[in-house]
Amino acid sequence: MSDRERPDDPAPYYRAHVFCCVNERPEGHPRGCCKAKGAEKLRNYLKARAKELGLDDTRINQSGCLDRCELGPTMVIYPEGIWYSYATIEDAEEILQRHLLRGERVERLMLQPEDRLPEDRAALRKSAQ
Amino acid sequence: MSDRERPDDPAPYYRAHVFCCVNERPEGHPRGCCKAKGAEKLRNYLKARAKELGLDDTRINQSGCLDRCELGPTMVIYPEGIWYSYATIEDAEEILQRHLLRGERVERLMLQPEDRLPEDRAALRKSAQ
Repeated sequence: MSDRERPDDPAPYYRAHVFCCVNERPEGHPRGCCKAKGAEKLRNYLKARAKELGLDDTRINQSGCLDRCELGPTMVIYPEGIWYSYATIEDAEEILQRHLLRGERVERLMLQPEDRLPEDRAALRKSAQ
Repeated sequence: MSDRERPDDPAPYYRAHVFCCVNERPEGHPRGCCKAKGAEKLRNYLKARAKELGLDDTRINQSGCLDRCELGPTMVIYPEGIWYSYATIEDAEEILQRHLLRGERVERLMLQPEDRLPEDRAALRKSAQ
């Protein structure tokens, strides 16, 4: 149980809840966007494959901007809060097979603390005070 | 630490990550949708208020369909996985003040296990086997 949870919280609806950024920015925006890098196709693939594999306790959702645009397409998997940058169908399948089916981590695709953007570092410093 | 987490997982990017369903269904759809019940206005309010209050370690995102259409507008807050049905600005403000700022629960708005949809119950039974 994380320090955010409480003993009398209801049981979760989903064992794993995946949010795939599909945010779109105007063409030429300096940060780029996940949609322009094929995020929708990847999200649709994950959704279809999760259904195909009978992962009824896992939900694949699209989300708005996860603010890791330069590293996209990105996704985050809760409740464990693991972030991935994935570029291809093969990446998506590996996350599905290893993380979602077997509870492993796909280290080569994981976003790490040193991948934080400057404004995250500022927020972290603030919350640590 | 929940049983989904691992000791060597990176620190989370956000202390609280809120996903507000803003899904839209065609008019007249029997399940209804969060968007038709004012979800975008509520999500925009939460986002603006979180900024105003300096909640830098909290992110308010929009998401696709969270599949609680009949109970919407709905949101889920991770990593704790608490679901809310909220209808008004006052509801949104109470969640912000009590849950996000003080780590409490807004019991009157929380979705409970008995609010599960029939297909969730089937999935739960399956995963418990």
